[in-house]
Amino acid sequence: MAVGDYSTDFHIVPGVRLGGVPCGIKGVDQLDLVLFEFVSGSVTAGMFTQSHFAAAPVLVGREHLDQRDSRYFLINSGNANAATGDEGKSDAVTCCKALSQQTGVRPNEVIPFSTGVIGEKLQVANITDALPELIPTLDETNWLLAAQGIMTTDTRPKIATRLLEIEGKAVTITGIAKGSGMIQPDMATMLTYIATDAVVSKPVLQELLKTGAEQSFNRITVDSDTSTNDSCMLTATGVSGVGCDAGAARASFQEALFSVMQELAHGIIRDGEGATKFVTVNVSGGMTRQDCLSIAYAIANSPLMKTALFASDANWGRIVMAIGKADATVDHSKIDVYLGDVCLMKSGGKDKNYREEMGAEVMEHAEITIRVELNIGNETETVWTSDLSHEYVTINAEYRT
Amino acid sequence: MAVGDYSTDFHIVPGVRLGGVPCGIKGVDQLDLVLFEFVSGSVTAGMFTQSHFAAAPVLVGREHLDQRDSRYFLINSGNANAATGDEGKSDAVTCCKALSQQTGVRPNEVIPFSTGVIGEKLQVANITDALPELIPTLDETNWLLAAQGIMTTDTRPKIATRLLEIEGKAVTITGIAKGSGMIQPDMATMLTYIATDAVVSKPVLQELLKTGAEQSFNRITVDSDTSTNDSCMLTATGVSGVGCDAGAARASFQEALFSVMQELAHGIIRDGEGATKFVTVNVSGGMTRQDCLSIAYAIANSPLMKTALFASDANWGRIVMAIGKADATVDHSKIDVYLGDVCLMKSGGKDKNYREEMGAEVMEHAEITIRVELNIGNETETVWTSDLSHEYVTINAEYRT
Repeated sequence: MAVGDYSTDFHIVPGVRLGGVPCGIKGVDQLDLVLFEFVSGSVTAGMFTQSHFAAAPVLVGREHLDQRDSRYFLINSGNANAATGDEGKSDAVTCCKALSQQTGVRPNEVIPFSTGVIGEKLQVANITDALPELIPTLDETNWLLAAQGIMTTDTRPKIATRLLEIEGKAVTITGIAKGSGMIQPDMATMLTYIATDAVVSKPVLQELLKTGAEQSFNRITVDSDTSTNDSCMLTATGVSGVGCDAGAARASFQEALFSVMQELAHGIIRDGEGATKFVTVNVSGGMTRQDCLSIAYAIANSPLMKTALFASDANWGRIVMAIGKADATVDHSKIDVYLGDVCLMKSGGKDKNYREEMGAEVMEHAEITIRVELNIGNETETVWTSDLSHEYVTINAEYRT
Repeated sequence: MAVGDYSTDFHIVPGVRLGGVPCGIKGVDQLDLVLFEFVSGSVTAGMFTQSHFAAAPVLVGREHLDQRDSRYFLINSGNANAATGDEGKSDAVTCCKALSQQTGVRPNEVIPFSTGVIGEKLQVANITDALPELIPTLDETNWLLAAQGIMTTDTRPKIATRLLEIEGKAVTITGIAKGSGMIQPDMATMLTYIATDAVVSKPVLQELLKTGAEQSFNRITVDSDTSTNDSCMLTATGVSGVGCDAGAARASFQEALFSVMQELAHGIIRDGEGATKFVTVNVSGGMTRQDCLSIAYAIANSPLMKTALFASDANWGRIVMAIGKADATVDHSKIDVYLGDVCLMKSGGKDKNYREEMGAEVMEHAEITIRVELNIGNETETVWTSDLSHEYVTINAEYRT
């Protein structure tokens, strides 16, 4: 299942080539090895999981990115190379070295990424043996192939793209993402790669990535679970020659970039494991943003709320319950709650005009907004989530079998 | 579904009488109104939910308990009288007053309790009209009837009982509980009533209740959701004449009381919504108890871990993921993880002797222990939980329909 339409259209990003082949990790003839190549001079910003058990490729990738700008991303799906200790790190480095030998770049100009089952030794030979076949597939037009190659329980590829005109010249932003379960990213989503041909300096790129993530990948949750491999990468090749570090150019670039990030983040929720609903939870009128966020996540992660959404049951008692348990300052006698445009609760009690049919009508839709007005301050936060369906249980009960 | 055997045996508690009748809130002829009567001179300690949306009866009950010792508990199931504002409070008080008029006690010697659907006006007339029929049913032997009368999605009554000999005299402790979903109590579980004929002063009773709850009701989770109506009451009638405030008598009494509390708390998990597994999560070797508790709850509440438990899949990567996301100080290279007696992970990586069949064998059992050794300190914590099954989704998708 997945919610809403999606598009696989994209614009190529000058300076970026992509490739992909099956290497036998996921199964016979399944695309599971993907390569990004960036033209010399490209600048990359990255954010990685905050998990205590950050996977081996995350540890290696952080080091490499600190040392040099990246020329290649080497990504396998099917095995997360997480909880694999020192051997896992050395396996990730071996893959970088093998690619370095065949491309002439330094090993630390390669960043490794893995996604899939946790706790299994990485199939290094499958990856290194496939490189001679992988490298010749590099092509500017392979964005969709790459989006497909990084999928695990995803049911559809996630791709977002913008073509802007800045100072009379064309600038492109295109990104792909994967992720469907184990999704409540903490600093970044599972795997996201965004590239642009704009000219952006590394500090600005890092700042844009961080700010954008706080409005997209760091505001989504499928199941409250945080991956060991979350990584979000933003690369600027500079091939367009259009500087976007400041002024109106930066404003235009930032707006387009943030909308790409939000589209990819929403794409992950729309394709959340077993999702039948795309739910926006907005909390406003709080004293602090953290208060608003705590309440929004309490609602978005409540199994009782999520099963009610699956059942299209306007069970607003469960919204009240979730607000009640959140770690936040509230005055319950001032709280209003809306489902779509329907007011369920006014000043802490059932709204006098509310009738069950009104809530039921909103719940029939696949896209639903829950809005909580705390009425004690001026802060607001929004998170996005999916529902909890039988298919979520089926997918996760059968994932390894 | 429910896990393990259970007993409905109990000892009567001298000084306590119980009654129950159907009053039409839950449906035709369904037992939904229960009354406890305590002999004059009884002392009661109580703990209530910490939810911002504490239900009307909780607000009224806290006040009444502060003012006087309780002579009656009046409990309805089917309607939680939560998120009902001032009208809800006045409805709860009306019920207390009606009982007071028919029994001759003061209104604040009655504590009201409600459990069921949130956000609906309480059916006050159903309750007050049923009182003339309810009061004559009071009898010392009605503990099981009361346990049945407070059930909502519970599939079986929960009752625990101990008969001790202290200073050569008999002392009884008997308790009942209800709760199956919306269970991660914050200071108390949904509804628990424990009574004893020991002589215990109010401060000691309150201290015992608090300490015992920290090892029982405050360490269980079905779905991470915290009820608006959680209440846990402990009443000492003193009829046995055996003082248990201090010394060896207190030690014996405390041991028996805590085992009753733990048995009731475990009973709630065994009867957790859709439960097919009873899972003990023990985290030891942490620097603080809070660190251990954060990790234990991260594991116990992870939807991915809970679906793996439902599938009897020894997917230890999900244990690693949950440890990784917990807010706690860890050194991942020192962590060992056990499933039953089987070591899955040693020093942060897969144990060399571990084979999939070994984990699978443990997972086949209905009662499973997950043990995490952090190896950086001396603190430990234990929580208990159930799995996430299709039936959980079915129960909560269909609760109101």
